[in-house]
Amino acid sequence: MPKVSKKGLLMPASPIRKLVPYADVAKKQGVKVYHLNIGQPDLETPKQFWDKLKSLEMKVLEYAPSNGIESYRKKFAGYYNNIGIAVDASNFMITEGASEALSFGMLSCLDENDEIIIPEPMYANYIGFATVGKINVKPIPTSIENGFALPPIEDFEKAITAKTKAILICNPNNPTGYLYSKEELLVLREICLKHDLFLFVDEVYREFLYGGKTFFSALNLEGMNEHVIVFDSISKRFSACGARIGAIVTRNKEVLASALKFGQARLSPNSLGQIAGENLFDLGADYYNGIVAEYQKRRDVLIEGLNKIPGVFCPNPGGAFYAVTSLPVKDTDEFCQWMLEKFSYENATVMMAPASGFYSTTASGKNQVRIAYVLNVDDLKAAIKCLEEGLREYASFKSDALVN
Amino acid sequence: MPKVSKKGLLMPASPIRKLVPYADVAKKQGVKVYHLNIGQPDLETPKQFWDKLKSLEMKVLEYAPSNGIESYRKKFAGYYNNIGIAVDASNFMITEGASEALSFGMLSCLDENDEIIIPEPMYANYIGFATVGKINVKPIPTSIENGFALPPIEDFEKAITAKTKAILICNPNNPTGYLYSKEELLVLREICLKHDLFLFVDEVYREFLYGGKTFFSALNLEGMNEHVIVFDSISKRFSACGARIGAIVTRNKEVLASALKFGQARLSPNSLGQIAGENLFDLGADYYNGIVAEYQKRRDVLIEGLNKIPGVFCPNPGGAFYAVTSLPVKDTDEFCQWMLEKFSYENATVMMAPASGFYSTTASGKNQVRIAYVLNVDDLKAAIKCLEEGLREYASFKSDALVN
Repeated sequence: MPKVSKKGLLMPASPIRKLVPYADVAKKQGVKVYHLNIGQPDLETPKQFWDKLKSLEMKVLEYAPSNGIESYRKKFAGYYNNIGIAVDASNFMITEGASEALSFGMLSCLDENDEIIIPEPMYANYIGFATVGKINVKPIPTSIENGFALPPIEDFEKAITAKTKAILICNPNNPTGYLYSKEELLVLREICLKHDLFLFVDEVYREFLYGGKTFFSALNLEGMNEHVIVFDSISKRFSACGARIGAIVTRNKEVLASALKFGQARLSPNSLGQIAGENLFDLGADYYNGIVAEYQKRRDVLIEGLNKIPGVFCPNPGGAFYAVTSLPVKDTDEFCQWMLEKFSYENATVMMAPASGFYSTTASGKNQVRIAYVLNVDDLKAAIKCLEEGLREYASFKSDALVN
Repeated sequence: MPKVSKKGLLMPASPIRKLVPYADVAKKQGVKVYHLNIGQPDLETPKQFWDKLKSLEMKVLEYAPSNGIESYRKKFAGYYNNIGIAVDASNFMITEGASEALSFGMLSCLDENDEIIIPEPMYANYIGFATVGKINVKPIPTSIENGFALPPIEDFEKAITAKTKAILICNPNNPTGYLYSKEELLVLREICLKHDLFLFVDEVYREFLYGGKTFFSALNLEGMNEHVIVFDSISKRFSACGARIGAIVTRNKEVLASALKFGQARLSPNSLGQIAGENLFDLGADYYNGIVAEYQKRRDVLIEGLNKIPGVFCPNPGGAFYAVTSLPVKDTDEFCQWMLEKFSYENATVMMAPASGFYSTTASGKNQVRIAYVLNVDDLKAAIKCLEEGLREYASFKSDALVN
């Protein structure tokens, strides 16, 4: 019998999805599962999207151009111009979600054994995309105590070798919710210019900012036109995760030309998501203010609720809709599985993403989980209560599983 | 300025799409371009697909499961059962077109420097997918004289090394239209069992059979459950290329488990294509008979028309909707570009895919092109006439470009 590849074995299972079979069993037993594991917003996909689908007068669902439908790219560029970023349709390559954008970006800029520096905890799938290209992820630890802020420049300098080709951050951050400041981006600019590195920035959460904070896009860093590659998506911004429409945004024409060849091999990004998605860029301040207000309310409920639970510490995130929190358990992989397999409170349980999968160094973050606050306030409160009860029950008979 | 990767430079541009900029210029100058370059059917996407989109009552466009929506996989399995292939929903992983299926299949089964044997000319993007994983494509030449039939078993035996992990065929074939017989598949079975190789079969054109020919699926080869990986798509079968919905179909659970991890990294295949596509599996014999009759008519017009042009030879394909034809020119890359840049006849020209991109050995097939017969009979006739005039004009002033 022929064997699967070493790469196939090495490929990490998603920490966000690997517990799905346990959740499925719980649901089949009639237990309600609060999904805090996945960044799947519960907010409605705007009416403009559905209206466009319903009004389609097409006869043939054709391939799109490999770099995306031109009218979509133009509208997308218009949205960028509105938020003060000077790009045009030629700076975009449309992809199947930010996932494919990140994948093409890495493959276009890094070869086997090249290194990409990423502060950790990091979005787990970055490790998967790097594994495809046999690219080495070099993590730089950040700390829960200071809210996962950018590590000092010396940490980057120490990590850089002759094989380093890029630094990647997610801003605002998935999984931590940390919002990088302009000053922090200027630090990254300095390092990238000094060492001639690409600066990859995943900005899919750029509209999700709380407490009056403002966002500084890497595309507005001076003198970095050839260095900055931004990854974007309509998934979170418009609650359209299933559309799978993302983008590479850069002024580096060589990178776009290279990415286009990877894009031609897969022919095109799906047409329906682009055709219906185009309308979403007409949404104005009212829309964005509405979703931000809703998520801010959720964030406040979550952070306050978590920090009230004995032994739990969660910093207050400035953006996105995630938080990484520590729990008073030794191994959240075990605990999260236990919550699904063995525990329920008022016939409900909570699914979370163990943070170990967001660390590329083994054994880091074993007592942390990522929580996505994509539920309404009432469900979120019930989920926090459920987590609190779960922690209590887990401690009562599994004292060896506790930290300290 | 940071440099793109070697892989990015090595990645082949699509021979199907690389001439697009020249076609765009011709169109802007008011010249009609007959697209014979790309397998984009002109037939209507069935009403069932559009009806489903128009009747959607969803509120949130959510991620699908990483291996695809269960109801879609069940209906898809039902279609397989109807054509005599015993599989169920658990044998499917839904992907973004067959492109992603092939990509995940290769990455799941082959490591860097492993070898995959593919008869050539081959679908150009196989080379691209292999490049991503640094997998070596070992071509086995087939010959236009015998219609690109499977080469003798000795040719495979000679090509197999310790690094060989898989054989890949496309059946019926893109680009040649060749339909492999049951006997030929039994030859491949013998080789794969003897050398413990995966047998990858791209069966996206399995419904497109002409002259009363029948199709034998690799999934029905005995004793090959662990070896056979089939790639499929709704793109061609239902004229839904822009939906980007394909699949890996296999009984090898390890391969599916590995592919699922690549799938989890990109989260999910797009939801809309699956939701609307599900309805297409209800289409019966009437639908299939209708499209086959139409394509057979086109094939007959094309092959007769081509072989009447002096110096042109095109074998008669048994399936799919492509043909590889030789032309009386030395270099079809130059000729195809010239047709778009410099030539028009009755204010029209023809876009074809130079065959060089379908050969992984340099300098093979330089006098061949791939033609997709995806135009109605009238347009096809006009396109053939236009090609004939183009060849005449090209020969008249470019006699050094002629073969002999």
